[in-house]
Amino acid sequence: MRYITGGIALGAALALGGLVGAGTSANAEPAPAPAAQTQSLYAPSAMVLTIGQGDSAATAGIQRAVTLSCMPKADGTHPNTRGACSQLRLADGDFTKLTKIKEGTICTREWNPVVVTANGVWDGRRVNFEHTFANPCEMKAGKGTVFEF
Amino acid sequence: MRYITGGIALGAALALGGLVGAGTSANAEPAPAPAAQTQSLYAPSAMVLTIGQGDSAATAGIQRAVTLSCMPKADGTHPNTRGACSQLRLADGDFTKLTKIKEGTICTREWNPVVVTANGVWDGRRVNFEHTFANPCEMKAGKGTVFEF
Repeated sequence: MRYITGGIALGAALALGGLVGAGTSANAEPAPAPAAQTQSLYAPSAMVLTIGQGDSAATAGIQRAVTLSCMPKADGTHPNTRGACSQLRLADGDFTKLTKIKEGTICTREWNPVVVTANGVWDGRRVNFEHTFANPCEMKAGKGTVFEF
Repeated sequence: MRYITGGIALGAALALGGLVGAGTSANAEPAPAPAAQTQSLYAPSAMVLTIGQGDSAATAGIQRAVTLSCMPKADGTHPNTRGACSQLRLADGDFTKLTKIKEGTICTREWNPVVVTANGVWDGRRVNFEHTFANPCEMKAGKGTVFEF
């Protein structure tokens, strides 16, 4: 478990480093262990977003799927990784907020469902999100940047 | 829903093209229903892979998470996207095969579980994979390239 112990060691080293930096004494302590096997200093954010036609993710055919990673930088096959990540950050990873249909939207009431999903990790927590728009008009009004691909 | 109708139109066009090319008579029969709602010409493959310490994904803390996309090209935050994609392709997306421990591996029997997960889409089909290695030694013997990050 090289990387786990590495991570713990690094954490400890950083904590020590912080202490040393804050102190006033000059006799510096042994340098913190090199970054070596850390897994990361940040909570991971990596997701797969899909769009499918159907009323639930279990049965819908998947039409598109993109990856989106927001840490350490916006990355992935999503066409606008930066925009999507900043929208997610603003909503604190709450996909329900992100798929709300703008007020005042007028759509027909036909049932031609489109289902969007997000699976993976946001800020270190598991994400399993699924939302069904009644029809493409509602989807257009609610998809935001995150499901624009 | 510009892109969906676009996709349907494209699918239909391709289907028709295929028929016309293959057929011998000129009065082509009604085309079979187009591959419906595909918009891309390939089935998507996009996943989030995680490694966590614990005995199940539901309870384990996530230590690392990477994205991996294999279509149209190997991409993602995985450190070896090409290697991982080709291993997945060889196994036809069967993660169970990929996490088999090599025969002849000798590990201690301690219980210090590491759980790996894969969520997303492989070749157009949903993937929800989870596997628990009893300890880091077993993980090392079974993780392959896909869970090497």
